[in-house]
Amino acid sequence: MLTELSSFKFIITTFLLVSIGNVAFAQNPSSKVKFWNPQQSDVSYIEGQGWLGEMVGNYNRLPLKMKGVVGERLWQLSQNSAGLKIRFKTNAQEIIVRYVVNQEFDMPHMPATGVSGLDLYAKTAKGEWLWAAGKFHFNDTITYKFQHILTKEYDSKELEYQLYLPLYNTVSWMEIGVQESAFFQPLTPRQHFPIVIYGTSIAQGACASRPGLAWTNILERKLGMPVLNLGFSGNGKLEKPLLNLMSEIDASLYVLDCLPNLTKIPKDELEELIYNAVVSLKKQHPETAVLLTAHGGYTEENLSDIRKLEYENANKALDAAFKRLKKNKINQIYMLSKNELGQGIETMVDGIHPNDLGMMLYAEGYFQKINKILSKR
Amino acid sequence: MLTELSSFKFIITTFLLVSIGNVAFAQNPSSKVKFWNPQQSDVSYIEGQGWLGEMVGNYNRLPLKMKGVVGERLWQLSQNSAGLKIRFKTNAQEIIVRYVVNQEFDMPHMPATGVSGLDLYAKTAKGEWLWAAGKFHFNDTITYKFQHILTKEYDSKELEYQLYLPLYNTVSWMEIGVQESAFFQPLTPRQHFPIVIYGTSIAQGACASRPGLAWTNILERKLGMPVLNLGFSGNGKLEKPLLNLMSEIDASLYVLDCLPNLTKIPKDELEELIYNAVVSLKKQHPETAVLLTAHGGYTEENLSDIRKLEYENANKALDAAFKRLKKNKINQIYMLSKNELGQGIETMVDGIHPNDLGMMLYAEGYFQKINKILSKR
Repeated sequence: MLTELSSFKFIITTFLLVSIGNVAFAQNPSSKVKFWNPQQSDVSYIEGQGWLGEMVGNYNRLPLKMKGVVGERLWQLSQNSAGLKIRFKTNAQEIIVRYVVNQEFDMPHMPATGVSGLDLYAKTAKGEWLWAAGKFHFNDTITYKFQHILTKEYDSKELEYQLYLPLYNTVSWMEIGVQESAFFQPLTPRQHFPIVIYGTSIAQGACASRPGLAWTNILERKLGMPVLNLGFSGNGKLEKPLLNLMSEIDASLYVLDCLPNLTKIPKDELEELIYNAVVSLKKQHPETAVLLTAHGGYTEENLSDIRKLEYENANKALDAAFKRLKKNKINQIYMLSKNELGQGIETMVDGIHPNDLGMMLYAEGYFQKINKILSKR
Repeated sequence: MLTELSSFKFIITTFLLVSIGNVAFAQNPSSKVKFWNPQQSDVSYIEGQGWLGEMVGNYNRLPLKMKGVVGERLWQLSQNSAGLKIRFKTNAQEIIVRYVVNQEFDMPHMPATGVSGLDLYAKTAKGEWLWAAGKFHFNDTITYKFQHILTKEYDSKELEYQLYLPLYNTVSWMEIGVQESAFFQPLTPRQHFPIVIYGTSIAQGACASRPGLAWTNILERKLGMPVLNLGFSGNGKLEKPLLNLMSEIDASLYVLDCLPNLTKIPKDELEELIYNAVVSLKKQHPETAVLLTAHGGYTEENLSDIRKLEYENANKALDAAFKRLKKNKINQIYMLSKNELGQGIETMVDGIHPNDLGMMLYAEGYFQKINKILSKR
């Protein structure tokens, strides 16, 4: 068995496979770095995927059975690795990640580091988060080199890492390398029931400057529990097939954050859509909490009545649906208001998509609310 | 006199020049939009430039006399329009800006909207800031369309606008257009003594997602007074020619924020450099306050002792220089500490350059300090 090298541009003459536990390493003798390819393991090491048995060997977000069931654009976006991460323990002082993506590196309002980049966080035994700065090179094969890791304090200990994958690109191949002498142990996904988030481009991660700063990923670190990212740019329209699919997951909490892409729907129709979405989830999971998120607003709203009216209509529909759900005694329903999302004129890049300041405020709003919801249970 | 159209790709058949006051408009009859080119006015309408008499007709930051005096790279960066803005009053509901830049639109860690984009803020009569969302298209000619402006509250009144220019690109040609029927009046630069900021890439604006979010520009809005941006990527090394040039400006305050590019200099040598820089400014302007800014730190520092040591050396040199200045009774010297800059693991895109969250914290730290300094006077 040889590592897939077709799209790999480094010059490597010999590969040797060594096995540590069930993890196969490809060794690169010239640079004394051993590489591990998560796709070649016999179990999945990708966290943030649902439907695990159906997803082995890919960095996608929806199982194959959804192809043709959801629209083509949503299917394509589901191949983006938003919210996915790889967890491992190592004492390495240098970690190299090389990988291939199949779409444009960036967007006009979101840099390559966010669209196609990686983010590496470490957690100490005390639960303190640390962050690793990687030197990045965007080429046919993208590389991130995390160097000079380890302080006196953490030296010779094994840190627990989370490597966040690209928010708006599709990873076709990836290898993680450490020095030959270093300890390296990938960690399987945590089994805790996840928070399942169904949303739009904002939930997918537009426009964070790096993957760790997408609000779903900040939230995941703040809560210390798995989050499932079902945010789809230009989509996230409370579609029946997606709601049915979400129902297959035993969640700690379902989040419906779809209003930013539902502003064109008449108020009564939208109220009905929201109401039915919640009822559909509650049918399968009557005891699981559902959080309904308001439209966060357009940050040019004080300069444009038209824009203000656009989202206010959606938030009124949400209010009406929420009241009707309460009235009909559907339990464990919560709402996150526009105010709680805390956006202002400096928090968006284009009036709609949060920048890193907006993402932090989004995450903070969600964190406060979800903490309350989960502590009540 | 005809508008320069060589690099202009829109199809426009006829141009008609009308004069309102000393402002010449190029009229585009087909779309009923009148365009104004700030470079064709008989006075300068560019705010954020020093040496005004020497800068008419360009969007640069240094006068021609500095070419060959400063290094070639610094000279090139001085042609970038970081910190420059155009102020005007209008009651237009649509504002179109079209312009040409001569470098790459983006960087891997900074989107086109920040490197080459525009940002438009409005201020109400009450002093409240509003923000306008522009639809952008990055082509040979870049366009921003700000539409659906005006609310009931501001309708028919004239708002005062600030249009921030690109942070990391050089503007060679620009036109601002409004509907033919709209009132439009450009405003000449404010005459208040500016805050003059000499710094590195962080001061130039890397890596804000849009120009208005560079910390110098946030600070300018918070303080309501002009700021002169002399931040130069990879440069900003307390060079003698730059210090002499700064001395030509009657400033409210001089800021020296150069440490991020001086970490390789031995501590004693750096202390001497900082000390001499302040003495040189004070010689010409004994009563003008000087603010010395510490290195903001590398946000991977808790995972890397080596990186921590790198900047700590620079901050120790600053401390020593600051003490020596105080000891030698040089008045009106202030320091902005690393703590006051408030950076953490979520505030940088690459460990060095602030994202929008980091920029806001930078601006807040500066605002608090400068407010104190100026209120003492």
